[in-house]
Amino acid sequence: MSGASVAKRRDPDLEIVAFERGPYTSYAACGIPYLIGGHIKEVDDLIARSPNEHRRNGIDLRTRTEVVSIDLAARTLTARDEQTREESTESFDQLLIATGARATTPPIPGAEATEPAHTLDAAEQLRAEVRRRGTHAVVIGAGYIGLEMAENLVARGMQVTMVDRAPQVMGTLDADIAEHVQDAAEGHGVKVLLNVDITEVVRDDAGRPTLVRTSEGDLQADHVVVGTGAKPDVELAAAAGLTVGEQTGALVVDDHLRAPGHDGVFAAGDCVESHHRILDAPVNIQLGTHANQQGRVAGLNAAGGDVRFPGVLGTAISRICRYEVARTGLTEREAADAGIDAVAITTKARTRAEYYPGAGPIWVKLVAERGGGRLLGGQIVGTETAGKRIDTIATALWTGMTADDLQFVDLAYAPPVSPVRDPVLVAARALAGR
Amino acid sequence: MSGASVAKRRDPDLEIVAFERGPYTSYAACGIPYLIGGHIKEVDDLIARSPNEHRRNGIDLRTRTEVVSIDLAARTLTARDEQTREESTESFDQLLIATGARATTPPIPGAEATEPAHTLDAAEQLRAEVRRRGTHAVVIGAGYIGLEMAENLVARGMQVTMVDRAPQVMGTLDADIAEHVQDAAEGHGVKVLLNVDITEVVRDDAGRPTLVRTSEGDLQADHVVVGTGAKPDVELAAAAGLTVGEQTGALVVDDHLRAPGHDGVFAAGDCVESHHRILDAPVNIQLGTHANQQGRVAGLNAAGGDVRFPGVLGTAISRICRYEVARTGLTEREAADAGIDAVAITTKARTRAEYYPGAGPIWVKLVAERGGGRLLGGQIVGTETAGKRIDTIATALWTGMTADDLQFVDLAYAPPVSPVRDPVLVAARALAGR
Repeated sequence: MSGASVAKRRDPDLEIVAFERGPYTSYAACGIPYLIGGHIKEVDDLIARSPNEHRRNGIDLRTRTEVVSIDLAARTLTARDEQTREESTESFDQLLIATGARATTPPIPGAEATEPAHTLDAAEQLRAEVRRRGTHAVVIGAGYIGLEMAENLVARGMQVTMVDRAPQVMGTLDADIAEHVQDAAEGHGVKVLLNVDITEVVRDDAGRPTLVRTSEGDLQADHVVVGTGAKPDVELAAAAGLTVGEQTGALVVDDHLRAPGHDGVFAAGDCVESHHRILDAPVNIQLGTHANQQGRVAGLNAAGGDVRFPGVLGTAISRICRYEVARTGLTEREAADAGIDAVAITTKARTRAEYYPGAGPIWVKLVAERGGGRLLGGQIVGTETAGKRIDTIATALWTGMTADDLQFVDLAYAPPVSPVRDPVLVAARALAGR
Repeated sequence: MSGASVAKRRDPDLEIVAFERGPYTSYAACGIPYLIGGHIKEVDDLIARSPNEHRRNGIDLRTRTEVVSIDLAARTLTARDEQTREESTESFDQLLIATGARATTPPIPGAEATEPAHTLDAAEQLRAEVRRRGTHAVVIGAGYIGLEMAENLVARGMQVTMVDRAPQVMGTLDADIAEHVQDAAEGHGVKVLLNVDITEVVRDDAGRPTLVRTSEGDLQADHVVVGTGAKPDVELAAAAGLTVGEQTGALVVDDHLRAPGHDGVFAAGDCVESHHRILDAPVNIQLGTHANQQGRVAGLNAAGGDVRFPGVLGTAISRICRYEVARTGLTEREAADAGIDAVAITTKARTRAEYYPGAGPIWVKLVAERGGGRLLGGQIVGTETAGKRIDTIATALWTGMTADDLQFVDLAYAPPVSPVRDPVLVAARALAGR
């Protein structure tokens, strides 16, 4: 809908038809955990722009309507009304595919029927269920979505156990950073079980979960929430002939978000590959920020523009209980996996002047090419205001700075917001020249 | 003391003598307003490193001892013990001058006896006075220190009037940003009088203020606090023969913080000129961040190092009542004054996702060379967490980015910490290509 909106603004004469499988448009999926936790009261609060607002802006939006096939040669598509089950055909000159990602379910008996929390209508169901009954919840998967859900289920008065097969929470972070996140979750009352396999989700006759069987014993479970990731939803586009990247499983696009070899066909968001500026390789990192920027670029280009999407760093942030945690670029492990000879350092500082009320710990990890080369990535964990400092590192990565460059950047200081030596600069100084 | 400390760490055999006029070392002058307001309870909390800690680190520190003259040819200096009034001579191989800045007093009858708040011992006196008596305070000068003092005097239960001759608060910001700061101060209960001249500070027989006479009438005043700026304290160095910049009134140093023409003589901090990276000209901007970095660079170089200080952007931040306000690089007015053909834009956004509790307003102003040229500066004002976003702009300025470059940088988003379109990116997008 970002793409549709900017295209319409750029060229008001464009006739734009948008298809959406579900009932909602333009909603903030990232806000779902907070809806469950009660920080956000109404489902409507998460809707940035309702279907009718889009229609008032001149977009012919068809909700509860799924596109089931695309004929690129004929430049037509077939859509099915989810209520009447009737199919209709629509022709197009330009096509933007933004099918997103689909939550994965682990191959565990009984897990396939778990309450999902990936879409807004699913979230509504979970919220109603949680209000209605039970006191025990099991979260499968200790990534950021699982952690956010766990935190918010605790806020709902649930006893929450989080289970992951991996040896650490947030497998996308280096272990020394992730352990602080685990501390925060445990401090909040979440029971964290790592290196544990789930063998079965046991359900009662009504299909409601009762038990989760694990390699470490049974867990009582009135609710089971799965947060084990999502994969690009490319089925429709692949069937139509678009190329899917071998490594990523996502649609291949060029730097204008065009599908190579298919004139006038664009794709954007969680379903596409993006160019990773540090790896100089395609990746599929599902983030609302990328999707939003890409939607805009694709929409402008579809409407006759010439805008280049300059790639991504995978900058992400999450607030997990008392800590904010953020990353950009490569972790130490990812740099090693990519065969880069890298050095890394983690420094601890405070979020505010030591003496100022509310100062808390902040750990900053920086990764760079060995020998004083360019910065490769950063990770931050710490109390309130720690996380967004990642933006400084992201901007440094964007322009290819070294730690030696970064250590002198003129950053802002006042006692209520920072120590005189900014924590990011402290880390850069420690890494400079290594 | 930063310089002395790093020099000692770099070369433990160095014999370092440090002279300090006052009783304290290494204290956080920026924390003084919060000491007055009671956010910080003890004077000791503001002392990062006490004289005895420095002495334990091997530095021969002489407090309450003022250097009264330097003979660069003989490589000696004369110091006076403030208690015994006795003078002694010390020789040196390397000299670091870090005399800082001296608060200015406006040329108003009676103002010369105002309670200052520039040094820690002066702050202690003011705090004691404020506790002891009176309910009315007048703050002369509406810059950031005046505003911070006003806020904290309100926190002490004072009725505070702030008076400035200028037409806006925070004259170092553009007026459209400064007006939000004024709103915040007034919302906190500070009475702000602009375009008002003070003609006299009237005192009783004991020298205590009673009235402040202004062009708009008399103001009751049990306390008068002056925050009208400070100027580089260069008298000692100038008398010794160091060059003082004509425009800045500060000591001229090269990029290694050496005094040109004087081997082994360094200067750092509020008393020196710094290279402004955007103006490509020397400036004197008094900030703890610069002083700290420069102290370190000068100390390393004095101890045989070869470190370049790469210049400044004048990045600064302050929390004024409900808002944080920050700047980096040039304001729109400063760009015009420098004869640069610039464009500027101010955009309003929210600090968090619109629907997330605690989201507040944030205004971001960006200034760039007309025609899509490099960014020249940024200003931010808004509720908690708004201000440190200036670091992203500072990093962008540091590397010479344009607004078009900046609009696509991969910044972090999660509902509790940012909208999906980061406010800085919103501003960059609005300015891109103009």
